[in-house]
Amino acid sequence: MTDTSQSTALETASAYHRSWTSGDLHGAFAHVADDIICRAPGGDITGKDAYRSYLGGFSQMMTGLTDVAAFGDDEHALLFYYPHTAVTSTAPAAEHFTIRDGKIVESRLVFDRLSFGPPPQQ
Amino acid sequence: MTDTSQSTALETASAYHRSWTSGDLHGAFAHVADDIICRAPGGDITGKDAYRSYLGGFSQMMTGLTDVAAFGDDEHALLFYYPHTAVTSTAPAAEHFTIRDGKIVESRLVFDRLSFGPPPQQ
Repeated sequence: MTDTSQSTALETASAYHRSWTSGDLHGAFAHVADDIICRAPGGDITGKDAYRSYLGGFSQMMTGLTDVAAFGDDEHALLFYYPHTAVTSTAPAAEHFTIRDGKIVESRLVFDRLSFGPPPQQ
Repeated sequence: MTDTSQSTALETASAYHRSWTSGDLHGAFAHVADDIICRAPGGDITGKDAYRSYLGGFSQMMTGLTDVAAFGDDEHALLFYYPHTAVTSTAPAAEHFTIRDGKIVESRLVFDRLSFGPPPQQ
């Protein structure tokens, strides 16, 4: 697989990532295509509006961030990071982006829902 | 972040990945350090023997594989792929490897346990 350190796909994904993880959803969504498909744990989310609601909900839960790795090639980027919430700061997430014409058209998102859920009820 | 297309870390991770996903655990573990730490969903797994048991269990469940992306730099590699099981072929996994002296010393593994679990009981 070809990868470069000058990937514009990675630049787009990184700008998006920096924005939403710091609470700037408006800035983040400047990099998102109207017809984005996010393949999230449990189901696909289609379209910018639905994705904004989904990501906005998670963004509000975030208390911090540890970035681990970021790579890209001509059309894709791959990020690995730990989103911190009140529940965990040691459960990672990874996102594989497809970027066309400077916009994110697909995000394949993986995290362990059980690790981010509330503690089990007694 | 620096990345190269000649990453020996990526070569090591890819050789490991090809082996275990095709059922060749012996070949895979030639690339694993004795004191590996695997940070898996739900808890850390320490040492080659414990890790072999963990990975062997999952390997037996695999029915196929779709690779999506593979990147690396001097000391790290990052893979994103869909392991197929009887339950799902659309739930991804990502692995971030740290490689020293040609061996995998740490694996940060993420997948959604709920997506790979058995269907809920009625």
